[in-house]
Amino acid sequence: MKKVIITIGREYGSGGRIIGRKLAEELGFKFYDKELLEEVARKSQLAPELISRHDEKPNGMMNSLFASTSSYSLPLNQKVFLAQFETIREIAEKDESCVIVGRCADYILEDRKDVVNVFIHAPLDQRIKRIVELYNADEKKALETIKKIDKKRASYYNFFTNKKWGRSLGYHLSIDSSLGLDQTVQVIKQYVLLKGE
Amino acid sequence: MKKVIITIGREYGSGGRIIGRKLAEELGFKFYDKELLEEVARKSQLAPELISRHDEKPNGMMNSLFASTSSYSLPLNQKVFLAQFETIREIAEKDESCVIVGRCADYILEDRKDVVNVFIHAPLDQRIKRIVELYNADEKKALETIKKIDKKRASYYNFFTNKKWGRSLGYHLSIDSSLGLDQTVQVIKQYVLLKGE
Repeated sequence: MKKVIITIGREYGSGGRIIGRKLAEELGFKFYDKELLEEVARKSQLAPELISRHDEKPNGMMNSLFASTSSYSLPLNQKVFLAQFETIREIAEKDESCVIVGRCADYILEDRKDVVNVFIHAPLDQRIKRIVELYNADEKKALETIKKIDKKRASYYNFFTNKKWGRSLGYHLSIDSSLGLDQTVQVIKQYVLLKGE
Repeated sequence: MKKVIITIGREYGSGGRIIGRKLAEELGFKFYDKELLEEVARKSQLAPELISRHDEKPNGMMNSLFASTSSYSLPLNQKVFLAQFETIREIAEKDESCVIVGRCADYILEDRKDVVNVFIHAPLDQRIKRIVELYNADEKKALETIKKIDKKRASYYNFFTNKKWGRSLGYHLSIDSSLGLDQTVQVIKQYVLLKGE
């Protein structure tokens, strides 16, 4: 099949990262998530722990970021975004298919024809259940975390891009993972295989 | 497989109605679109041409509509909505799987567990191309029609429901039909078959 880059946006607790990893395994694609962060760190010579702390936190403007003549004067989170931006573009240039989770990859690669943008969501009660099971949290705490992280993801995305997080028109496929994680992988896989024909 | 009701929302020119019909054929499900309108007409004893003229035109409030003690005093388009509401609920009660295109069916059936809500969209240039080919219209006219009909569909939906038209979180599956109409049918079919297992 032809080369395909799959980008995955996801609600917290929807299983999006797990789905992305399984999808990459089944298709034999490379997978970028924390690995991506590490690659960024190597490139930009920022310490990984600093990047983790500043990752996906909006502050400043996409336009002003790119209008800047020097990256030295940028706030750290914008430096991180810029480093990730460059890394994602370089990954996309490689002659291999991959899955990239989060980090506005759909927006960063929007001029390419070989990309499939996926958004994964799930009903709130199912996401709470998953977080409770995964992290042994109580339901109230799980709900708070979901709201906090989704708000952060949405504002990061809406801030750095000209699109709206979770709006179906911005994705080739938006899918409710309450179907089951393995089942969701199968549906996305079929879309990708048909696209790559 | 278990009974499944598939509801389809769609952007104008995305091929949503054709996809819905093919999907119903492939799965051996009943298909409701204009047929639905006729059934409404028979039930409500409104002439089909009157229903066609007033179908999917927002005016008034969902709440006030249902708070009304008598349907005789309602404006015609709200009577039509009410008649469709009742018809869709009755169809859903039947012991058979079906596909229902448009008419806020996802909202009307939101309390049911046997429903798969699908939204079909496509990039604007592809939708213009389809309308030009289907109706022998020029590109400018096609664009005007697309904007007009989508605006009407969105305001109808947003008005009568508590959800937002085309927002991925409101659907189990939102899909870009530029994959190809037959291919889109296959992806939706897989979701439905996995859901019905």
